Amino acid sequence: MQAAILAVGSELLGTDRLDTNSLKLTAALARYGVALRRKAVAGDSEAEIAAELAAVLPRVDLVLVTGGLGPTADDVTREAVAAALGRRLVFDQATFARIEHRFQAIGLRMPAVNRRQAEVVEGAELLPNANGTAPGMRIAVPGGAVLYLFPGVPFELDGMIAAYLEPWLAERSGGAAAETAVLKVACVPESTLEERIAPAYAEFGREAITILAQPGEIRLQMTATGREPERRRCLAAMSRRLAELAGDAVFTDRDGDTLESVVGELLRQRGRTLSVAESCTGGLVAERLTRVPGSSDYFLGGVVAYTDELKTRLVGVPETLLAAHGAVSEPVARALALGVRRALATDYGIGVTGVAGPGGGSAEKPVGTVHLAVAGPAGGPPESPEDAASEPVVVHRRVRFPGDRERVRRQASQLALEMLRRLLLAPSEVPAAAEALWR
Amino acid sequence: MQAAILAVGSELLGTDRLDTNSLKLTAALARYGVALRRKAVAGDSEAEIAAELAAVLPRVDLVLVTGGLGPTADDVTREAVAAALGRRLVFDQATFARIEHRFQAIGLRMPAVNRRQAEVVEGAELLPNANGTAPGMRIAVPGGAVLYLFPGVPFELDGMIAAYLEPWLAERSGGAAAETAVLKVACVPESTLEERIAPAYAEFGREAITILAQPGEIRLQMTATGREPERRRCLAAMSRRLAELAGDAVFTDRDGDTLESVVGELLRQRGRTLSVAESCTGGLVAERLTRVPGSSDYFLGGVVAYTDELKTRLVGVPETLLAAHGAVSEPVARALALGVRRALATDYGIGVTGVAGPGGGSAEKPVGTVHLAVAGPAGGPPESPEDAASEPVVVHRRVRFPGDRERVRRQASQLALEMLRRLLLAPSEVPAAAEALWR
Repeated sequence: MQAAILAVGSELLGTDRLDTNSLKLTAALARYGVALRRKAVAGDSEAEIAAELAAVLPRVDLVLVTGGLGPTADDVTREAVAAALGRRLVFDQATFARIEHRFQAIGLRMPAVNRRQAEVVEGAELLPNANGTAPGMRIAVPGGAVLYLFPGVPFELDGMIAAYLEPWLAERSGGAAAETAVLKVACVPESTLEERIAPAYAEFGREAITILAQPGEIRLQMTATGREPERRRCLAAMSRRLAELAGDAVFTDRDGDTLESVVGELLRQRGRTLSVAESCTGGLVAERLTRVPGSSDYFLGGVVAYTDELKTRLVGVPETLLAAHGAVSEPVARALALGVRRALATDYGIGVTGVAGPGGGSAEKPVGTVHLAVAGPAGGPPESPEDAASEPVVVHRRVRFPGDRERVRRQASQLALEMLRRLLLAPSEVPAAAEALWR
Repeated sequence: MQAAILAVGSELLGTDRLDTNSLKLTAALARYGVALRRKAVAGDSEAEIAAELAAVLPRVDLVLVTGGLGPTADDVTREAVAAALGRRLVFDQATFARIEHRFQAIGLRMPAVNRRQAEVVEGAELLPNANGTAPGMRIAVPGGAVLYLFPGVPFELDGMIAAYLEPWLAERSGGAAAETAVLKVACVPESTLEERIAPAYAEFGREAITILAQPGEIRLQMTATGREPERRRCLAAMSRRLAELAGDAVFTDRDGDTLESVVGELLRQRGRTLSVAESCTGGLVAERLTRVPGSSDYFLGGVVAYTDELKTRLVGVPETLLAAHGAVSEPVARALALGVRRALATDYGIGVTGVAGPGGGSAEKPVGTVHLAVAGPAGGPPESPEDAASEPVVVHRRVRFPGDRERVRRQASQLALEMLRRLLLAPSEVPAAAEALWR
């Protein structure tokens, strides 16, 4: 089956808005194996809409139109479609009653203009809109194509896709559909990860696995097609295999998780607390941690120490260390992590110091150089004698991140959280593991 | 003049990418008063490209095609255009030499596939590409339309628009063009700002002024059309008038400025330093301040005090205050601002405490309730006797922000920076001004 999409709305032809509805429709089509051949945007113009329909209806099996079903004079999709198909618009009493009722239910009188929304293309099957006044329509076009008219309001469109388009596509595919699963990976270069997972390409097919990279994070996306339960079994097998190949760099298989939410959950499970001391990231690590609702359960606070003096005053970094090694150095990163842990009385402490740029770089410490350290308990569970007695573990990593100030800061915050994640999972292995990150 | 845009590339028909090139082309068209009638996306398919050209060439004056000019087998725009126009592709020796030279210049041998990029549509005017190997083409089509073929790589397209499309459009418009100017406004509700600037609509025309709102910030965009210098004069007059109507809520007329960069510049000019104590914003105020390159000149550091205990330990908020009023209260916000200013020895201090949600709200302090305070010198210039002698000024504001956790935090960080900006500009007026913010 082949499809085309048409988005209607003059605002979508301006300089700052794109037709994002088409991505939702494309996702639904892709799930049921329908190929999208083209998509177009037309202004609120009968002639343009009709021209597009004339161009695509003979060539595809399915045409999805969004927008232009509103009550105002510039909403002309109904008229344009009727004209293009050589049909009349007819007034539908049941639809009119529905619209009137929607207004009454919220204590309003229906504006006269909304009457237009009860005009339907002759022969169209009406698709009531649970989230708005404009009904959708499904029209079987002579020649075999099916034409859907959907409202353009994204929230209303979501409801229409779920209520009408998906079931219709599912019926035609005989239950076969594509489904995706995801693994998220932190702090491994894309090429390294690709090398590691290469065996899975041969096993599951090159096109079943997609790698999507952003600074410091990679999304491994798997797609399986077919009927339930086969596709679920296939996804589970792929996910297991990829997790095995990618190793402990995988931090979640849930799409809604972020690295900061995963780290937070580990701290919460273990009953541990965290504080951070940041220089070049300027609060970004703390900000990311506190984006997570409920983070006050484990994140107690942090300091942003942009000057040498404040590194000393706030978390006790010895002046001698700063003088001997400079603020961007391993000893200072370690002292920040240990110092904030002590000063704020938390189980774990993170220290970050570096040159985010664009200024401040030198031959020895070029822009992008960042020292990171994480300090935490080496011993048993919280408040056990081993926990209290043992010296803290400190892991350290020096990295030179590529990119501009924003990318350097983003990647540094990511590695800080990833080092903590690994320390939480396997305290004894983390010094070696930290060395391997971002290599 | 009327135009159509066609973006070529199967990747633009997937579930996660949109054709953003069309926005750049639309902006160039809009500057010279050319109306965009439609835009479309076609996969890497000769048939689809040819069908679109056949549909639009008879109806518009200008067709802009991007993409599909690469060297690989799926790049078929050249072939499709030649076929649609009934022309041949001819090998262009000069273009071939240019491409070969590009590779030689970086010490590489030209791959054989790149030879295809020297095939040009018969009769096309070649547009050398300064940023890549694929040349563009300009083709006068019988019937009067002009067809441009541009590379799809955004960076290459930018160069082609500037080098070829803009000058061509400028020539046809006789020097008339549209130009925009901007004013950015912080912490005023959209409806309030609209009321204030309403007189300008009558004076300059409703469509000359656009209001674009995001949480805590509004962009007033002005557009003037015509020739130089009239349109510049008109923009300057609009900008002056809008600034007068919008008042001191306008923080910049430069598009590249952010509220944090403007505040930073004021601190730098005055030789003043800043620190922040954050609770509900969790480091966001510090993070925004340190996004600005060179912010270490005036931003010394901050603390994120998520617990009551750390509010006391890090910046000396009295335990009695916390016990009497709760952490989310005016006295605690004031104590955070004064305390961080004292503890970190800076001229200004910001304190933010609130309920970001989704949990933690109560009837008295519902989710979104935030107390903000800014403390700073009341007296003369830095290190003057008045400066040293006088008691600090503290301004405070309690707001209930709408929206989810992220929006509450974003708006709180925005108001903190705006309160500081006003205190820097007019210390004596700010208590009243702060009260008026977000009303």
